[in-house]
Amino acid sequence: MLIVMEKEASDEDIRGVVAKIEALGYVAQPIPGGERTAIGILRNPGPVDPALFVDLPGVQEAIPVSRPYKLVSREMKRADTIVEVTGGVKIGGGHFVVMAGPCAVESEAQALTIAQAVKAAGAQIFRGGAFKPRTSPYSYQGLEEEGLKILAQVRAATGLPVITEAIDHHSLDLVEEYADIIQIGARNMQNFSLLRRAGQARKPVLLKRGMSATLDEFFMAAEYILSEGNTQVILCERGVRGIGSHARNTLDLAAIPFVKRESHLPIIADPSHAAGRRLLVAPLARGAVAVGADGLMIEVHHDPAHALSDGPQSLYPDQFATLMQDIAALRPGQWS
Amino acid sequence: MLIVMEKEASDEDIRGVVAKIEALGYVAQPIPGGERTAIGILRNPGPVDPALFVDLPGVQEAIPVSRPYKLVSREMKRADTIVEVTGGVKIGGGHFVVMAGPCAVESEAQALTIAQAVKAAGAQIFRGGAFKPRTSPYSYQGLEEEGLKILAQVRAATGLPVITEAIDHHSLDLVEEYADIIQIGARNMQNFSLLRRAGQARKPVLLKRGMSATLDEFFMAAEYILSEGNTQVILCERGVRGIGSHARNTLDLAAIPFVKRESHLPIIADPSHAAGRRLLVAPLARGAVAVGADGLMIEVHHDPAHALSDGPQSLYPDQFATLMQDIAALRPGQWS
Amino acid sequence: MLIVMEKEASDEDIRGVVAKIEALGYVAQPIPGGERTAIGILRNPGPVDPALFVDLPGVQEAIPVSRPYKLVSREMKRADTIVEVTGGVKIGGGHFVVMAGPCAVESEAQALTIAQAVKAAGAQIFRGGAFKPRTSPYSYQGLEEEGLKILAQVRAATGLPVITEAIDHHSLDLVEEYADIIQIGARNMQNFSLLRRAGQARKPVLLKRGMSATLDEFFMAAEYILSEGNTQVILCERGVRGIGSHARNTLDLAAIPFVKRESHLPIIADPSHAAGRRLLVAPLARGAVAVGADGLMIEVHHDPAHALSDGPQSLYPDQFATLMQDIAALRPGQWS
Amino acid sequence: MLIVMEKEASDEDIRGVVAKIEALGYVAQPIPGGERTAIGILRNPGPVDPALFVDLPGVQEAIPVSRPYKLVSREMKRADTIVEVTGGVKIGGGHFVVMAGPCAVESEAQALTIAQAVKAAGAQIFRGGAFKPRTSPYSYQGLEEEGLKILAQVRAATGLPVITEAIDHHSLDLVEEYADIIQIGARNMQNFSLLRRAGQARKPVLLKRGMSATLDEFFMAAEYILSEGNTQVILCERGVRGIGSHARNTLDLAAIPFVKRESHLPIIADPSHAAGRRLLVAPLARGAVAVGADGLMIEVHHDPAHALSDGPQSLYPDQFATLMQDIAALRPGQWS
Repeated sequence: MLIVMEKEASDEDIRGVVAKIEALGYVAQPIPGGERTAIGILRNPGPVDPALFVDLPGVQEAIPVSRPYKLVSREMKRADTIVEVTGGVKIGGGHFVVMAGPCAVESEAQALTIAQAVKAAGAQIFRGGAFKPRTSPYSYQGLEEEGLKILAQVRAATGLPVITEAIDHHSLDLVEEYADIIQIGARNMQNFSLLRRAGQARKPVLLKRGMSATLDEFFMAAEYILSEGNTQVILCERGVRGIGSHARNTLDLAAIPFVKRESHLPIIADPSHAAGRRLLVAPLARGAVAVGADGLMIEVHHDPAHALSDGPQSLYPDQFATLMQDIAALRPGQWS
Repeated sequence: MLIVMEKEASDEDIRGVVAKIEALGYVAQPIPGGERTAIGILRNPGPVDPALFVDLPGVQEAIPVSRPYKLVSREMKRADTIVEVTGGVKIGGGHFVVMAGPCAVESEAQALTIAQAVKAAGAQIFRGGAFKPRTSPYSYQGLEEEGLKILAQVRAATGLPVITEAIDHHSLDLVEEYADIIQIGARNMQNFSLLRRAGQARKPVLLKRGMSATLDEFFMAAEYILSEGNTQVILCERGVRGIGSHARNTLDLAAIPFVKRESHLPIIADPSHAAGRRLLVAPLARGAVAVGADGLMIEVHHDPAHALSDGPQSLYPDQFATLMQDIAALRPGQWS
Repeated sequence: MLIVMEKEASDEDIRGVVAKIEALGYVAQPIPGGERTAIGILRNPGPVDPALFVDLPGVQEAIPVSRPYKLVSREMKRADTIVEVTGGVKIGGGHFVVMAGPCAVESEAQALTIAQAVKAAGAQIFRGGAFKPRTSPYSYQGLEEEGLKILAQVRAATGLPVITEAIDHHSLDLVEEYADIIQIGARNMQNFSLLRRAGQARKPVLLKRGMSATLDEFFMAAEYILSEGNTQVILCERGVRGIGSHARNTLDLAAIPFVKRESHLPIIADPSHAAGRRLLVAPLARGAVAVGADGLMIEVHHDPAHALSDGPQSLYPDQFATLMQDIAALRPGQWS
Repeated sequence: MLIVMEKEASDEDIRGVVAKIEALGYVAQPIPGGERTAIGILRNPGPVDPALFVDLPGVQEAIPVSRPYKLVSREMKRADTIVEVTGGVKIGGGHFVVMAGPCAVESEAQALTIAQAVKAAGAQIFRGGAFKPRTSPYSYQGLEEEGLKILAQVRAATGLPVITEAIDHHSLDLVEEYADIIQIGARNMQNFSLLRRAGQARKPVLLKRGMSATLDEFFMAAEYILSEGNTQVILCERGVRGIGSHARNTLDLAAIPFVKRESHLPIIADPSHAAGRRLLVAPLARGAVAVGADGLMIEVHHDPAHALSDGPQSLYPDQFATLMQDIAALRPGQWS
């Protein structure tokens, strides 16, 4: 923490801040500048709350210097975390993985048809929603446990591990039982109660970035999971609120190299939800590979015009197969 | 729904869209224009999913025409909803209410001290967090049920009804038992599982707008609560992601007259969380009154420098008393 | 400037940064912390470019401490600037002013009709565009010099000083000749060549905040004008890109108290362009008064359905008269 | 234009809208729906102003259906525009081009050193600023005409065409004389007076997207240039205001495939200004290639720590050479 004083702060103001710092058990280091004095706080074991200083006489600003996150930080752990999924699939540290499937599991036939198609095209993990967080209470909400059973059948039939979203404690209990990776969606990125529960799970967790979350907030959400003991966390960039309506959200690809520098956790991209329309999915998927993502999550549906959820952004199986070939030409997982 | 065709769409393309509409049981109305044809969908009982059309040959765009929300809409219910709280306090329809208190309940002494101060200044409802959704797992997380007991004691001692936040099903059960109004925070605005549970509660619910939620999304979140049978919902504008860092969030005061036109539900403003700093709280509170808010939620702390949460945005009791006098001069609740 | 080192920065890295600071003629002050070292830069006459440090070995971040602006800063000039306009109208320092009129000057009859109406309701300055910056090249672009002549006739007939926008050097020459206040629009907030020219003008300048400008950028734009010698600058908040489409832009009323703390310049609000629709104009105008704005700029048209520009956000004269009465009840110019 | 009526609009309200449409010389087509009536406007030669309807009794909304842009639209011209630059360099239609060089031209030696380095690495166009639009009036503003002369010398020495920014009419006159491509920067994207002047120039124009411009606004800015007769326009995505501070702006790569669908004009990306820091430039450049950009504009400096402008985002020549090799592996210009 650095406390910046006003230009016209008095010596007494400065002594007041120093006394406050010392009363908290830290060490104060005044730094007289040309125009104004700043006061550094030393020996603090972790971040200090600016609230404690910003209101003292003569104080202009309190600037945090340390990062608020610890366990997710690359300063804490230099080596890339490699998340290991049932069946030997690895994510991170050069292991590039594509997760593909429908937005929602609709039936065994639908799920199996799509799973076989995406497996044939090279996907290594099957995705499909059983609990759907929908903006409208009148939209399709998913098959719930029935959907999880279908996912287990798909895994049995294809050998693909499965990922699906949990939306509350109850569904997380079930997802932990049936699935191979527990997904926490963008709308729940700061559902801290759910994050803690995910931190106690014995399965890897994929955490999506919230729609207007800074990377600090994203890291702190992951920190909740790690702080409960679950270190198998995959981050996922899925787009933030942007300018205009050409895409549903703006895929923030700069987040990927930045996350890889700051954190040891793997990060993948979800171009489907960012795009919101088929036209943009394949280009953004290729872009994500080229910036260095550790993987992709892609929506695929064999009959998107009749999909019960997010049809317009789902690729047809043949489009997905073409995309997988294009990706292979782009050195996936090898950029840093 | 209006389906806009591409300029060069063929007659066959147009027939394809018409056939699709009719297959769904609706009525298609082609509208030949100067440059291109559009096709209206009639007789649909509710919103139609654009997904069903956007991918057909020759289709350029599918434009929703109906609103997605129903129960919250003023088209559904013309008269203002007046929420009635324990003790005869009313919100909406010209009844203006100030809720005030600390960000977090820290102790009985702290809560009671502040409650007496805000009551003396004219507040009608006491606020205080027992379950705190904090960005960092290392920040103060609240007294939980102990905090709820303190709130009940404050109510007993002062007569003020109390409002406090629920962050998951477990805490909502407890909040419903102890408090007079159940608060759903901005981070949980799209925690649909929690919204459904709040819709089953027998207490009024205050729902905060998410940090990057459109008003349509905000209305749909309220729709989840109403669709479960709880019509006693208060909306709360608390700021959205904005430009720059002079305030934590940008209080979107235009939302207030807009919500009042579109919906019968009362809407209040929370200038404290929007501002993030004391300097801006009172001006924004006055501004919210003047645009026509049905109430305010304000953070007050007698010793903000030692507050365990959000100290820098808490008003001192004397600042709050001044603000209450200023508000009284601004015709609270009388603007439309 | 504070240079924050990485946790694992070596002593050599720290010596490198110190040497760089000293080579620039400044004084370096290392501040060893618990986890990492920071290095303060002292004796710098003005802001230091972070570019100079951010790339040196071991450097994690370079945090600016001083403000980049000088002449606009309240640290430079404590007393409120009061802008004096032809005819004795004053803005700032408790002097509250309403500028009103049509978006565009369309004819002498139109301008005069509206000017008489707004004068009767209490407006002190007449606004009307002669040079219109329009998103589309096919939209109405204004009467240009002919419009300026009409403005001069309106002033002669009503006694109201007039404000109008300049969009390039040529139009600024003309506006300086005919009008009483030169307006620089949001789209030109960072047209630095035009700002310099405005700084050389002998008339007051009203500078609108850009649609996605931070307040630092807004202050720096004003700094361009002041640095050329023109200290008669009025700032204007007119809304920034926000969330959703209920308003055209989000009027950022928190900017008003913040600007008044940081700068001595007066700041007014333009609710008409922020709202983009009549419904929201009066509420936002009242809100701006209550947060402490030094004035308002409001669009008024006696026949908005036939206005050549921005009709849907123009108030009818009787709506404007009602608004002026409401404003009078809200203690305009007396909030701080 | 589609006029959506309120649910409770009367027959008289509907007749009023129809009469208004017919008075304007268009054809009205009422579309009675289940819940409400909509009225289509037919036979309108171009976009209709919603202002004309939004205020009539019973009208809920006026929804534009046609695109506002014409000349830039792919509906107007199916084939890709290929911009031809002095020396036979082509951009668009499969021709991929890298423009590289320093942010600012600082001296002949500096410019020539960098130009030779980027040419050796494969760049086809040299960039360098002579007129610098800087946020602060106290920052380096460029060498102006002296800088243009240096650019001409660089072209003579290396054979590379040169691109440089114009910031007002005066500088555009000079840039048109000396340079091969005229750049209009993000801050001037809606400086319509400058756009018109660029439309009269006899040189190609590179137009950068404004920092918070929608693609519709971007297209309309280009429309200004084309409507004056200059069809040689290159669009450039350079990042928009985003969430958080990990990058200066958020490079909106989804804009690239969208622009290529809607318009015939070539579009390149500027990852340097979006990133604002070296770390992110190469990943974003690769991402832009993979989404299908027609080219890149990259800042390169042999001594960024001493660069007079934007040093922290400039690549070293060897980093640029590595990037050019990486790009070659990514099938530049071949994605669609």
